[in-house]
Amino acid sequence: MCYAFGDSLVQEANLAIVYIGVDLGGTNIRASLVDCCIKPGKTSVIDSCRQETGHPADPDKILGEIIRMVKHLENRASSGGHKVAGVGVGVPGTVDIDTGRIVFAPNLQWRDVPMADMLGLNLKLPVVVDNDVNMAALGEYAAGAASGSRHCLVMTIGTGIGGAFLIDGRILRGRNNNACEIGHMQLDMNGPACACGRRGCYETLASASALIRMACEAGLDGPEPVRSARQVVDMAKSGNALAVKVFDDYCCFLASGLASLLNIFNPDNAVIGGGVALAGEYLFCRLNRLVKREAMDSAYLDNLVKPAKLGDDSGVIGSAFAAAERVAM
Amino acid sequence: MCYAFGDSLVQEANLAIVYIGVDLGGTNIRASLVDCCIKPGKTSVIDSCRQETGHPADPDKILGEIIRMVKHLENRASSGGHKVAGVGVGVPGTVDIDTGRIVFAPNLQWRDVPMADMLGLNLKLPVVVDNDVNMAALGEYAAGAASGSRHCLVMTIGTGIGGAFLIDGRILRGRNNNACEIGHMQLDMNGPACACGRRGCYETLASASALIRMACEAGLDGPEPVRSARQVVDMAKSGNALAVKVFDDYCCFLASGLASLLNIFNPDNAVIGGGVALAGEYLFCRLNRLVKREAMDSAYLDNLVKPAKLGDDSGVIGSAFAAAERVAM
Repeated sequence: MCYAFGDSLVQEANLAIVYIGVDLGGTNIRASLVDCCIKPGKTSVIDSCRQETGHPADPDKILGEIIRMVKHLENRASSGGHKVAGVGVGVPGTVDIDTGRIVFAPNLQWRDVPMADMLGLNLKLPVVVDNDVNMAALGEYAAGAASGSRHCLVMTIGTGIGGAFLIDGRILRGRNNNACEIGHMQLDMNGPACACGRRGCYETLASASALIRMACEAGLDGPEPVRSARQVVDMAKSGNALAVKVFDDYCCFLASGLASLLNIFNPDNAVIGGGVALAGEYLFCRLNRLVKREAMDSAYLDNLVKPAKLGDDSGVIGSAFAAAERVAM
Repeated sequence: MCYAFGDSLVQEANLAIVYIGVDLGGTNIRASLVDCCIKPGKTSVIDSCRQETGHPADPDKILGEIIRMVKHLENRASSGGHKVAGVGVGVPGTVDIDTGRIVFAPNLQWRDVPMADMLGLNLKLPVVVDNDVNMAALGEYAAGAASGSRHCLVMTIGTGIGGAFLIDGRILRGRNNNACEIGHMQLDMNGPACACGRRGCYETLASASALIRMACEAGLDGPEPVRSARQVVDMAKSGNALAVKVFDDYCCFLASGLASLLNIFNPDNAVIGGGVALAGEYLFCRLNRLVKREAMDSAYLDNLVKPAKLGDDSGVIGSAFAAAERVAM
C-alpha cells in the first residue's frame, strides 16, 4: 500500500493490522475482529458482536446489518490502535469465490447475490466471501485442531453434514467450488430419504438430526421429548441403557462414513465440529475405536479423529483468515 | 544438463529426448518408449515390448527383466535417433514416491523393495516409481480422456476398483500416498464381505469381479460358465433378458458410488478404465443417465463420465510422463 509521505504514514504505521470475520447463519450473524498473526495457532479474537439474522429472505436488509456490524467493529478497532485491512464472510450456500457472488443459499432463500461487490463498495475494504463450512475449516486450520496439518478433513455435523478438505491450508474446491459434499455420500441405498433425492446419504444417517430421529424411533423419552442431540448424549452419559444403544448405533453410522472418507482422502487429521462434537471424549473414544477397525490400515493413525477446538468462533476466525490471505496475495 | 563442448554436444543435440514407461503387473511386464511431447494430447508410443512376469515373488529376477527390457528399448531408441532421459515404473502396490521404494505390493508379495535405487544404479538414468493406478491416471491426463482436465477422477475397474484424483495434472496423494482408495468406500453395511475387513465396499459391488458374481448368483449361463465381465456384457448386448437385468443392477451399484464420488470431488471429468469400460456406449449411456439422477445438480455435467482412451497403454504412457515430469523438475 502506498501513502503520501507525512503524518498519515506515521499514523498508519503505528496501527496493528487486523481483519473482520463474519459468519452469516440462518439464525444469527456473528462478526469478530481478529488478529491474524502469521504464526499458525496464534490467531486470536479481539472483539465480537452478534445479532439475530431477522429477515433472511431480504438480502438488502441483511447486508445492511453486516455493514453496520463491520463499521461498529472497525470504529472500536481504530480506537484500540488497530486498522482493519479486509473482511471475510462465510455464508451457508454455494459461492463463486472469484467474484464473491452467492450462487444459491437455500436456508436464506438467496440466489445470485453479488455480496462481495455490495459490501466492498460500501465498506471500502477488500471483501472475500466463501461457504461457511470452508470458512470454519480455514479457522480450524489457522488456529484450531487442524493447525499445522498438511492433509486435513474438517467435518461439521449439525442438521446436515458439511465437509472441507485442506491441502497445506488450501481448500479442495473442485470444478465449481462444490467439492466435499460429504453429507451426500451414499451409505445405504435402502436408507432414509434424503433432501437430495437419494436414499441413505451420510447425513440422513449420521447428522445430529439423524441422532434425534433414531432416538425418537427407539422410543427414547426423557423428562422432555427428545429434540436435540445434546439430550440424547446427556441421557447416554448418565447411563440410560436405551440412550446408550441409540448413541452406539449412531456412532456406527458416523464411523462407517468417516472410515470411507479416510480411505478416500488419506488425511493426517480429521476434525469434527458442530453440535454433536460437544459430546467430547464420550464420542471421540468410540469413534476412534470404530474407525480404527473400519478404515484401511494405511489410512488410520492413532487419535486421528478429534474435536474442533474453536467452537462457534471457527467461522469468524476462518473468514478473517481468508480475508488476510486474499489481501496478502 | 552440461556436456564438454565438442563432438558429444553436437551428437546429443541431434537426438530427440524420449522416456521409457514400464507397467509391472502380476501377469505381464510392459515397457514402451514414449515421446512425451510437452503439448497435452501429443504423447505417443514409439516402440514397445512385453513379457510375462514369471516369478513375481522374486524382486531380483523381475528387476533384472525390467533392466533387460529398458536396455533393449534404449538401444533401439538410439539407433532411431532418440535419447532416453528417464524411466518411470508403475507397480501394483503402495510406493514411497520420494524414494521410489515399494512399501507393499500384495499381488507380487513384495515388501520394502528399493526399486528406484536398484534400477537407477544399473541403468544410470533417473527412475521414478509410483502406484500403477496413479500412472494410468497420469497417462489419461497426458494423452487420453482426461487431457486438459483441471479436476479429474480416474477409475480403474477390474478385480477391484482403483482410483486417482488429479488437480491440474497433480495427483491427490494424502498423508502417505494412499489417497483415493475409492474401492473401499462403503456402499452397503450389510453387503458382501470385502478383503479389507468391511462389508459392502464399492469394489465388492461394482468391480468386474462383482459383475461376474452377480451373474453367477442370478444363474446366468451362456455357452460356457460365466468367467468374465465381457461375457456378461456380450450376452446383455445380444438381448439375453437375464443378462440385461444383471447388468442393469450392476450399473445401479456402479452409479451409486460414482455419484457419491462426484459429490465428494466435484470433478470436470470422470474417466473409467479397465475391462468393464470396454462395454463402451452400452455402459456409459446407462451410467451417465443414472449418475445424472443420483449426483447433486452442482456435481453433474452432461457426459461427465467417459471411457479411458489409451487402453493398455495408459500405464506405460503415464509412467513415461511421470519420468519426464521428474526430469524437468
